[in-house]
Amino acid sequence: MTIQKQLTKKPTVGQQRVIIAQVSPEIDAGRFAVKAIVGDKIGVEADVFLDGHDVLAAEVLYKKASDDQWQTVPMRFVNNDRYEAAFIASQVGLYEYSIRAWVDHAATWEHEIAMKIKDGQHVAVELLVGANLLEKKQALANEADRHAISEVIAIFRNPSQYALAVELAQGHQVQEWIHQYPTRDFASTYQTLKLWVDREKAAFSAWYSMFPRSASSQKGTHGTFKDVATNVLPRLKSLGFDVLYIPPIHPIGHQFRKGKNNSTTCQEGEPGVPYGIGSELGGHTAIHPALGTLDDLKQLIESCKAYDIELAMDLAIQCSPDHPWAKEHPAWFKVRPDGTIQYAENPPKKYQDIYPINFESDDWEALWEELKDVIMTWASWGIRIIRVDNPHTKSFNFWEWVIAEVQAVYPDMIFLAEAFTKPKVMAQLAKLGYTQSYTYYTWRNSKAELIGYMQELTQTEQRHFMRPNFWPNTHDILPWCLQGGLEPVFLTRYFMAATLSGNYGIFGPVFESMNHEANPGKEEYRNSEKYEIKHWDWSFENKLTHIIRMTNKARMENSALQRTNNITFCDIPNDQVLVYLKTHANGNRILCVVNLDPYHRQGGVLRVPLHLIHKHQHEAYIVHDLLTGAKYTWHGEHNFVDLDPHIMPMHLFRIEDM
Amino acid sequence: MTIQKQLTKKPTVGQQRVIIAQVSPEIDAGRFAVKAIVGDKIGVEADVFLDGHDVLAAEVLYKKASDDQWQTVPMRFVNNDRYEAAFIASQVGLYEYSIRAWVDHAATWEHEIAMKIKDGQHVAVELLVGANLLEKKQALANEADRHAISEVIAIFRNPSQYALAVELAQGHQVQEWIHQYPTRDFASTYQTLKLWVDREKAAFSAWYSMFPRSASSQKGTHGTFKDVATNVLPRLKSLGFDVLYIPPIHPIGHQFRKGKNNSTTCQEGEPGVPYGIGSELGGHTAIHPALGTLDDLKQLIESCKAYDIELAMDLAIQCSPDHPWAKEHPAWFKVRPDGTIQYAENPPKKYQDIYPINFESDDWEALWEELKDVIMTWASWGIRIIRVDNPHTKSFNFWEWVIAEVQAVYPDMIFLAEAFTKPKVMAQLAKLGYTQSYTYYTWRNSKAELIGYMQELTQTEQRHFMRPNFWPNTHDILPWCLQGGLEPVFLTRYFMAATLSGNYGIFGPVFESMNHEANPGKEEYRNSEKYEIKHWDWSFENKLTHIIRMTNKARMENSALQRTNNITFCDIPNDQVLVYLKTHANGNRILCVVNLDPYHRQGGVLRVPLHLIHKHQHEAYIVHDLLTGAKYTWHGEHNFVDLDPHIMPMHLFRIEDM
Repeated sequence: MTIQKQLTKKPTVGQQRVIIAQVSPEIDAGRFAVKAIVGDKIGVEADVFLDGHDVLAAEVLYKKASDDQWQTVPMRFVNNDRYEAAFIASQVGLYEYSIRAWVDHAATWEHEIAMKIKDGQHVAVELLVGANLLEKKQALANEADRHAISEVIAIFRNPSQYALAVELAQGHQVQEWIHQYPTRDFASTYQTLKLWVDREKAAFSAWYSMFPRSASSQKGTHGTFKDVATNVLPRLKSLGFDVLYIPPIHPIGHQFRKGKNNSTTCQEGEPGVPYGIGSELGGHTAIHPALGTLDDLKQLIESCKAYDIELAMDLAIQCSPDHPWAKEHPAWFKVRPDGTIQYAENPPKKYQDIYPINFESDDWEALWEELKDVIMTWASWGIRIIRVDNPHTKSFNFWEWVIAEVQAVYPDMIFLAEAFTKPKVMAQLAKLGYTQSYTYYTWRNSKAELIGYMQELTQTEQRHFMRPNFWPNTHDILPWCLQGGLEPVFLTRYFMAATLSGNYGIFGPVFESMNHEANPGKEEYRNSEKYEIKHWDWSFENKLTHIIRMTNKARMENSALQRTNNITFCDIPNDQVLVYLKTHANGNRILCVVNLDPYHRQGGVLRVPLHLIHKHQHEAYIVHDLLTGAKYTWHGEHNFVDLDPHIMPMHLFRIEDM
Repeated sequence: MTIQKQLTKKPTVGQQRVIIAQVSPEIDAGRFAVKAIVGDKIGVEADVFLDGHDVLAAEVLYKKASDDQWQTVPMRFVNNDRYEAAFIASQVGLYEYSIRAWVDHAATWEHEIAMKIKDGQHVAVELLVGANLLEKKQALANEADRHAISEVIAIFRNPSQYALAVELAQGHQVQEWIHQYPTRDFASTYQTLKLWVDREKAAFSAWYSMFPRSASSQKGTHGTFKDVATNVLPRLKSLGFDVLYIPPIHPIGHQFRKGKNNSTTCQEGEPGVPYGIGSELGGHTAIHPALGTLDDLKQLIESCKAYDIELAMDLAIQCSPDHPWAKEHPAWFKVRPDGTIQYAENPPKKYQDIYPINFESDDWEALWEELKDVIMTWASWGIRIIRVDNPHTKSFNFWEWVIAEVQAVYPDMIFLAEAFTKPKVMAQLAKLGYTQSYTYYTWRNSKAELIGYMQELTQTEQRHFMRPNFWPNTHDILPWCLQGGLEPVFLTRYFMAATLSGNYGIFGPVFESMNHEANPGKEEYRNSEKYEIKHWDWSFENKLTHIIRMTNKARMENSALQRTNNITFCDIPNDQVLVYLKTHANGNRILCVVNLDPYHRQGGVLRVPLHLIHKHQHEAYIVHDLLTGAKYTWHGEHNFVDLDPHIMPMHLFRIEDM
């Protein structure tokens, strides 16, 4: 008789009758935490039902994970056995939530006695039942109610007060007690689910990526942290960026150092690749001397703060052959039968300047602790944003552990996953804890691609765990669409990144200078800054910098642009025109119109979803272009747009009342 | 630092790198068993991926739950990180299955060394790596291979045999060893999932429901089990039914017994409702004397067998006030403050002839055991099919437990849920273990409704746990569509039940006699057999009985009609014509065409999905109407049909080769 034990067994409380199922949000049966932003209203839904026709009651339970006591919110019936309630995630950190439901015998009684009284039935026995039910409420009630309830119980039990009892049984006061003092008999409770609450910047951030060594005002000189503070920060503030992301700042290895354009032969004096991390001067917690000292870095972090900018560091878990770990911890690498450490390969290609970490190492626990220490050290310097290089080539188990460990101490820490990889791997990293994720936006160009991809991100389960960060370019990627060097493409690729997604970034100044020189047949920059020091004019302006400034200003001033999932695409019968509405609960409404054709004027009659902007048919309202200042009066649902890419390929309309 | 413990902790084996997710089939994260039929090929799919670029291997594990050893089937890559494999469920009962996956270092090596050799690289060190990997295979190999592998290892390690080693490294033999002897280092294993395997009848059954007390050949006489054997079984065999379902056969209570047409006043001599179970003569394990003895029942079960028919009994968990439990176990009912037992109500309506069971009873464990004993007693008589009356008004927890308990001893037991209730409740009962379920088919009439409902049943997750049983009528339900009494409606409602679904049933003889007398404004029979004894001519024939006979014959002879999920709807530009194709792996192909308009000829050009019938464009084939014997030659995809409802409103085509 072992077989039935494997199928089921008698439950502890066989009297439980309510089923709770299909809870939303819930990721992989509760295996992973749902993500939210502090202040968010967390809507929780579930199928809740029981056998028969009794009335049920359900509530959402929630608390900070570190609290002992659950808070409760009663759930409301929606339809088809679906119930919902919401709570506010008011603090950063880990929350827990669940659902509890039970047969509400008092509410059932209340409904049934009313039906019987209406039908003219004599309800003496029903009043006695009610008295018994009220006794349970009395036990839970405050002192004033306790007294009042006992009076009603006495009346219910006194046949000479039948008429009064019948009246009271249908009265507001009894109804109120029923709902105010739930007895929760034989309640069913769903498993505890997890909710991770991030700070605002996790959802709303404008990143600027640059190489500090290119920050010097002196051509031919290695830039420093001080140069960044002096030359770069004022520009970023003026353009409206709030995250400065810099590639690794550690000593660069010597063995097999790469030269200009990824050459395997490195000329004397070439600076090497910042991703070839580690030398005799140290590894992931050391600073490349040419950039400055640790104090200089800390000073840069402070300087950033003065501009309301945060500094994001880059975590690339790999080593140059000169990294201290290569000598001190050979067990963390693959050692080949000839005693050498295995360098990175993608056969037949060899990357002899890089030793990848072996996450199958028998010494994995020490390895994990050391990697955690790297992050904790950076955090102790004041770093609260980390961009992780190629996380998809490191152990998933490690990421889940280390992100939780770090956020347990620094719940304001943000991790951005640079995982340009397969969709399921990308999603898994987000589930495991990454705060933000690079996306396929870089390669989504047509209207159908953009809408399809946005729907995947914002309409599927992904909206609960994956926060996109849209980049039109990166220091690794110059996508085909930009290689033609067409100004309207630069403008729209930038604009859509900044308005489709709450988080976006660019790699500059190469982007805003509209540089488009690629290595032939590849989506990468020719003379890439990864391999050489550049010199830039940090004060240049063009049409694109104007649009960047105006768009970032609009983002700061319009809460509808500060989130991603609040998007609705609007109909327009033109495959070259993309129209999307973003709305915020505070009433802010932004309508973006983009001409995707860089050569020709495109337009058409678009359809505004009036219910989302709270206008009725034929009602007049103003669309105020925040890029140009122009204002137009529109009426109702159907309105005409027309965009000349050579003048301005997009509108950034705020919808304003007349 | 408690917070991070709640988020995650270091896994036991930090070296595990493979992720297994989104397994299918899987119901509610493995909470419930997937259902299958003995002999079914169980296809299992999952997302399987790892960090980086190593090659992975994955396998499905499966076994009878009672076995100790897992069987394994290697999984095949499909696309987008999806893998699949299948196994045969060869026995009735509980199976377990899971997925295991690991980094296949040997396969990775095999791929990489081939790339390097092709590129002309020197691979001496790689051969040494290969020798080490082969040592692990050697440890797992059979004796012959062990010897052969050690020879190859020696060659790999002998620099003077470099050329031979390079050749062997790319050879078929080494590849074979790699896949034949998986090392499964740091394998990830998914949670164990459950699969319940039923016998064939769970998927393929034709039910006939009738009241044994109406089986007498003498008008005015109470029919008996013997009358059923004599008068009814030959007819059912002739019509092609294989399940005879009878309402409760227990003593009927006296208190508040219902009269004709559900009257609350019962005339002397009226037989009462079989659902008013229990009297001084006994309860759910006693037999109503007017029907016969227990021996007579057992004889009926045997008589059924002789006709290849199974007898299904009816489990209605409720009691008349005269049921022995009312006296012996008042704790199983709700006792009111005046000491009386609470009768059934739907306020303001009262059902004083019925005491419902209180599943919140403190004595629930004894109650559950007693109810289980009822079923086990029936099983001991030879009953293997139970239709459960209104299971949705009894505790879900109880059903899950009792079905598993019974099937642990009688894995061939079939439970049909008569739950005409809300969709989520209906689905829950199926998940909890019900073998078959009554459905909304009874009220799905239009083409859009029928296609939509079939897609819900056969295309969504429901296909893994809910087996529909389609009924055009029941003894409780005379749906609106039949109340017009139109012959084409009776024909098509019957025909679609029998061909859309593998399981179906009718309540006769009222159905095949096309009786359509309803209580006004209700979907119920006037002068219902529930309240009185009827007298029937058990030999009458009409057009409908002819169609029943031909359809049941076609069902027996065509395996495509023996399943439900193997359906594809075919395009035809006519909202009154429903066309569906059912196919079986053995090559059997059935195409049904139904005119839903009972008044007018309807037709059009339908489109046959050629890839499903393995025909190419313009190829000729025969459609052979199994209802009429007519044969037509069709060509390719587009073919014309036209049906006159007054002649024959449907085709039952077998597709045959020329």
